[in-house]
This record gives sequence, structure tokens and C-alpha cells, in this order.
Amino acid sequence: METIRTPSIMKQTSRRLQMQGRSVGLVPTMGALHEGHLFLVKRARMDNDIVVVSIFVNPTQFGPNEDYEKYPRETDNDIEKLIKAGADILFAPDVQSVYPEGFSTSIEVGGITKKLCGLFRPVHFSGVATIVNKLFNMVTPNRAYFGQKDFQQTRVIETMIADLNMNVEFIRCATVRESDGLAMSSRNRFLSPEGRAAATTIYKTLSSAAEQVKAGVPPPEITEHMNEALRAEPLVEVVQYAGVYDPLTLDEKKASGGSSLLAIAAIIENTRLIDNIVIEV
Amino acid sequence: METIRTPSIMKQTSRRLQMQGRSVGLVPTMGALHEGHLFLVKRARMDNDIVVVSIFVNPTQFGPNEDYEKYPRETDNDIEKLIKAGADILFAPDVQSVYPEGFSTSIEVGGITKKLCGLFRPVHFSGVATIVNKLFNMVTPNRAYFGQKDFQQTRVIETMIADLNMNVEFIRCATVRESDGLAMSSRNRFLSPEGRAAATTIYKTLSSAAEQVKAGVPPPEITEHMNEALRAEPLVEVVQYAGVYDPLTLDEKKASGGSSLLAIAAIIENTRLIDNIVIEV
Repeated sequence: METIRTPSIMKQTSRRLQMQGRSVGLVPTMGALHEGHLFLVKRARMDNDIVVVSIFVNPTQFGPNEDYEKYPRETDNDIEKLIKAGADILFAPDVQSVYPEGFSTSIEVGGITKKLCGLFRPVHFSGVATIVNKLFNMVTPNRAYFGQKDFQQTRVIETMIADLNMNVEFIRCATVRESDGLAMSSRNRFLSPEGRAAATTIYKTLSSAAEQVKAGVPPPEITEHMNEALRAEPLVEVVQYAGVYDPLTLDEKKASGGSSLLAIAAIIENTRLIDNIVIEV
Repeated sequence: METIRTPSIMKQTSRRLQMQGRSVGLVPTMGALHEGHLFLVKRARMDNDIVVVSIFVNPTQFGPNEDYEKYPRETDNDIEKLIKAGADILFAPDVQSVYPEGFSTSIEVGGITKKLCGLFRPVHFSGVATIVNKLFNMVTPNRAYFGQKDFQQTRVIETMIADLNMNVEFIRCATVRESDGLAMSSRNRFLSPEGRAAATTIYKTLSSAAEQVKAGVPPPEITEHMNEALRAEPLVEVVQYAGVYDPLTLDEKKASGGSSLLAIAAIIENTRLIDNIVIEV
């Protein structure tokens, strides 16, 4: 596996691969890789000649009181995992080369960024859209892979690609879970054993909500059950949102039927955890 | 010359040209073509295998009280001129295909968009950056050509290309002028013979300011002279700005020396005209 550290070398490499007619799959990550990330890498491996994984803890998608400084960084570990998963290129630029002095451009996706996580993280999705746009231009991938755990993020990126006529195929991959159902996340390591045990309530709540959706229970009622279930767990400090949403608009669903996004954002031991399930009835 | 009317066909064509290894030059325009545009086309013709000219009167770069409806549209005339100038492809999509229902993404370039024209046209440069970004993704040009008359626009696009790591070479071409110095503009046709005569005061003012820059007159004094000269012309209804600026930051210059942007935006007979000169001392 080759490691590239600067945008200019990455761009040279992309141009060369393009001229050689080799297809490129990109898996953008912030490192601290877990099985969820590696699932994306393996999927990219199946679809493309060359697999590029980026590791970049993007400062602009963290709010001032969020965990940018604390976000785990463990590149040596990550490199070993990526080699095993079959990545060809690790692109790991430093902050200065990505955001040189005078940098002043941002990408704003309206509408869906103002809901769910966007209500609690007002700068987050603009930071995500901007860095992903930059990565797409640096790597010029044929395909890009994102995990469904960050469902709203996948919708924001899909929207940006369509609205800006970008030349990349977007691929959303299933959430990978621990054996007890907890969605894999680089932030899970912040939890104590007690917090880790309490965190299973998120997926349990989603799963029983999914049963209720299938049974035709009206969404407002399901939303109420979800909030009750989460509040019943004493280690859940805050429920930012929990409910039944339209997967396209991210608005709350009023009526049963069609496609439903069940989504939760909750804080346990000062760690913000999100998860979701999409079901069709 | 081939005419393409939809983004999807344009993208297919771009992909084919890219696979054939043919270089593409893009000249983005809003139509109503004059010698200034054709100069860009001829320059693109010299540098590239294929020259694409886009004609699209972009609604999002006009403010609510601006001249979007009134902006001249004369595609048949334009086509004739483009064939003569040697364009290969005219890309002229309709508004609906460029901004389909649900479109919600914009590109914001900070800093320089808040100055000069940006003070009077608050949504303008976001509209410009967004449509140019889209055109770049649809046409995937190797090079893109813009006229210096819209100097601030060229700085915004240069900044966007650099900040978003876009894969296009930006080329700024000299302003083309009428024999009496008036910068060519699709809006000049809105002027009556009297207004047209009065409009020459803009370039005259820039030219004498340029002499003062060369003579080492302090910028604040030059700015005063420029405003006086423009106000002396009775048909100049408003001087939005006139002065000596730093071509990189677009801030007012306080001291002589180095690079200077002399720039004017003035309204004559309800028509907004801009022009500029850049000089090095």
C-alpha cells in the first residue's frame, strides 16, 4: 500500500490512474478504523481496480465544543488494517495542506442539513460537504463509499453530487454492528463498560420501533415509545432526537406506510452516538 | 458545431472526449455574444482540441431587482458567431435541467465576495460560483476562459478552483473594448446614443487614474479624482464604487506601489456598467 501525504501528489496520481483507464474507489474516513470502515474498503475492492482510503480528521466539521481534539488518531494501527483489507493507496494529508492560509470556500446543502443532527451541529454538514467535495476533486474516484450509520451525511453527499453534477457514483453500505447490535463507531471507545452496556439500548429501541412500523403503528406513537425507551436507561444523558422520519426529506412522518427512517442521536457518558434503520412497508 | 441541450448528454460527451484523451477548453457565457466573448473562444481554440461554449442565463446570480428577465437572449445570432469563431460544441441547457426541483446546494466563497460588486449584489457571486462549479463538472474542461472585465468574478472563480482542488486551469483574458475604449458588454445595448456616449467616461476615468498611479499619486487621492470625474458626467446616475484596490484582497489601497486594480461600477440609464484596469508599478 502506497501512502500519499499531500493533495498535489494525490492529484498527480489520480491523473495518472485516469489516463491508464483504471477505475478508482474512494473510502473517505477520519481514521480510527473499525469493521464498519473495513466493510467499505472490501466493497470498494470488489468494484474497482484501485482502492483509495483517505484518513483526515476534518476540523471544519466539528463545532467549537465538540470532540475534534479528542477524536482518536491511530494511523499505525489503521495502516495495518488497510493493508489486510486490500487498500492500494492511503491518502492522509495534513490540515495545513488541505486548508492553506486564505482558504475561504464552503459548500452549503440546504434543507436536509437543517434537520436531525443539523439542529445540534450547525456547521457540521457544511464541513462534511466541503471536505468530501475536495476529496472527490483530489482523488477523482469513479465510486465513493459511505456507511449508512451516518444516514443524514449520506443524504447530504448524495444531494451535493446530484446538485453539482459531480462525476462520482455514490454507494451507501450497510451499518456494521457489534454482536449485541451496537453500531460500530470510532467513538464507542470513549465509553466505560457500563456506558458500553447502556449503549445497546439504542439499537434495541430501533429494533422494537421497526417491529411497530411493520405492525402499522402510527409514527407519532412509535416516536413516543422510542423516547420513553431511551429515557428509561439512566446512563442516557440526552436524547437529541429519536423518531420516525421520511428518508428523503428527513421530516417527521405523520402516517404509516412507505419508506421509514428510524433514527436516534443520544449522549451517553458525554459521547454522542447515532444510529438508524431504514424500512419499507 | 454540435449543440447540446441537457446536462446528461453534455456529461456523456465529456466522458467520451476524456477517454479519447482530447483536451477541452470551456468558455462559459450568458449569450448575447460580443467580441469579448469571441476573443475567449479564439484563445480557447488555440489551446485545446475541443472548444465548448456554454450559453446559460443563470437565474441564481441575479438579485430580485436585477435584469434577469430583461437580459438579452439571441441564440440564433450567437450560434452564427460561434461557428465563425471555431467553437466545436455549444452547450445551452434550459433552467429546469440545470436546477431541477429540490435543488438546494450552493457554493460560498468568503472574503472577496463581500467587497466591491458583492456589496451591491449580495447573492451574485454565490450564484456565479455554483453555476461555474456545475459547468466544470458537466464539461470537465482542461482549461476555462474568463474575461478580465469581470475582474472580481475571475478572482472568485480562481479562489474556488484552488480551495476545492478543482482540476481545471483558469485563464483570464484581456478585456476587449470598443474603439472609444468602452468595455464590450452585453448590457451596452441597453444604452441610448446619449447614454452610450456618456459611458465612455468610465474608461477615460480609469485611464487617467492609471496615469496617476504611474506618477505615484497616493491611492486615496486617485480615488477622489475618479469619483469627481464620474460625478461630472450628468448621465451617471450612481457610482457604486470607484477606486484603487489590491487585486488579490480587493481591499482599498492606502499606499502607492505594487499591483493596483482600478475599478468602477456605475449606473447609466438604469444600466449597471463595470470596468477595470490592473497595473503594476
